Amino acid sequence: MANIINNIVCIGSGNVATHLTSALAKAGKNIVQVYSPNAAHGQTLAKKLNCLYISNINNLQPNADMYLIAISDDAIESVAKKINTEKGIVVHTSGITDIKVLNHHKNFGIFYPLQTFSKNVTVNMQDVPFLIEGSSQNTQQQLIQLAKSISNNIHLIDSEKRKKFHLTAVLVNNFPTYLYLQAYEYLKSANLNFDLLLPLIRETGNKIKTVNPEKAQTGPARRKDLNVLETHRRMLSNFPDTLKIYNVITQQIVKKYYE
Amino acid sequence: MANIINNIVCIGSGNVATHLTSALAKAGKNIVQVYSPNAAHGQTLAKKLNCLYISNINNLQPNADMYLIAISDDAIESVAKKINTEKGIVVHTSGITDIKVLNHHKNFGIFYPLQTFSKNVTVNMQDVPFLIEGSSQNTQQQLIQLAKSISNNIHLIDSEKRKKFHLTAVLVNNFPTYLYLQAYEYLKSANLNFDLLLPLIRETGNKIKTVNPEKAQTGPARRKDLNVLETHRRMLSNFPDTLKIYNVITQQIVKKYYE
Repeated sequence: MANIINNIVCIGSGNVATHLTSALAKAGKNIVQVYSPNAAHGQTLAKKLNCLYISNINNLQPNADMYLIAISDDAIESVAKKINTEKGIVVHTSGITDIKVLNHHKNFGIFYPLQTFSKNVTVNMQDVPFLIEGSSQNTQQQLIQLAKSISNNIHLIDSEKRKKFHLTAVLVNNFPTYLYLQAYEYLKSANLNFDLLLPLIRETGNKIKTVNPEKAQTGPARRKDLNVLETHRRMLSNFPDTLKIYNVITQQIVKKYYE
Repeated sequence: MANIINNIVCIGSGNVATHLTSALAKAGKNIVQVYSPNAAHGQTLAKKLNCLYISNINNLQPNADMYLIAISDDAIESVAKKINTEKGIVVHTSGITDIKVLNHHKNFGIFYPLQTFSKNVTVNMQDVPFLIEGSSQNTQQQLIQLAKSISNNIHLIDSEKRKKFHLTAVLVNNFPTYLYLQAYEYLKSANLNFDLLLPLIRETGNKIKTVNPEKAQTGPARRKDLNVLETHRRMLSNFPDTLKIYNVITQQIVKKYYE
């Protein structure tokens, strides 16, 4: 039986760091320090967790069970190199950064929550898929145990596969969010209320739980209704960016179902 | 006080016709006939509603309170011309077809539910925005009363504005659904399970209820993380259609937040 992770140092103070450490603390884990170059955010998080904030990474305590790196991808490798620990597991929470960037440590791994976190938006952590990878069987077991303390949705997945989930997360989260913005700005320019679209947005996400994505497609492009497509294009003549997206996706839907 | 609509003839037997008439029947309205050129679908719906199915539009009864046309956009005008009624309100349920196509009738209007309906997927009709337009004050009042019998979300909106909602519904429903399909196929090609994305998809739609679309954007394009963008592009090299969408939207997000 693998040792249980209890004492955790948090490196970072953004949305992922905040949501994960809050859930871990709630599950009884001991967050012992928060390090962040951003003093305001770091202090806020440390206060919330009732632990020590440190502004100098050299002051990390060396004997924590785990060092949780939740910072931007391009900073992970250099920050990881500054962590001085003998046995502690050094993990990062990124979907796209390879596990290799941590491999100068004895024990290391990945603790990737496949979810979007925002300030002041509560997420049901029990549902969040955690994609876990560990430098050894023992480390993997420890990380799985830790993930199980906050979620029911745990997956052991290597870096190459994890990157594929990260890429598709962009497709199903970042890009729809940009489309919402296009709709918001289009309606705003006509003084119309975006909120009328909220039930449709919710249902769009709901439906995909029960309907296969291949069968869920509806709309004028799916029906190849050329009159409606032409009307929409005319309506977008003053919105060249939206029109460009409209044309690319419409063309692909028509091609998929009619060629 | 406007007369209450009670007796309704349904023209069409697709998803919109099925969901609307079922909700109206449940609210105590009397669906007196279902007309559909598709005999199988028409008979199924008529059976469900316990009313008469007719295959010949000349057999429509002339004295219903309302004729609800829920068929594809390109057929609305010609079918509406075949309806023989003196006082009945002739309405269609389309988001994009102008009210004018009905104007040879004495009373006519629009009864547009801003929602996606699928077979076997229950929708909470109370939340669905109904966009209403009527040929007269009196007709408008009658249609609003009818909509209120099944929904709490009623809006009096003219055809030009309704078309704008229809266009944006494509942006927030049809296009995200296509992006889900891209993610599904990409993961399937690597034997990975699309279901891991479902909590993220749900949260994406949830978040937009409380976070302004301008502030909801996250991800590598929003951070202008060029290394991650390049990694994603490499990973999509065998998926040219997805790559094309990736490049167009990524470029627009970077432009929006950094130029």
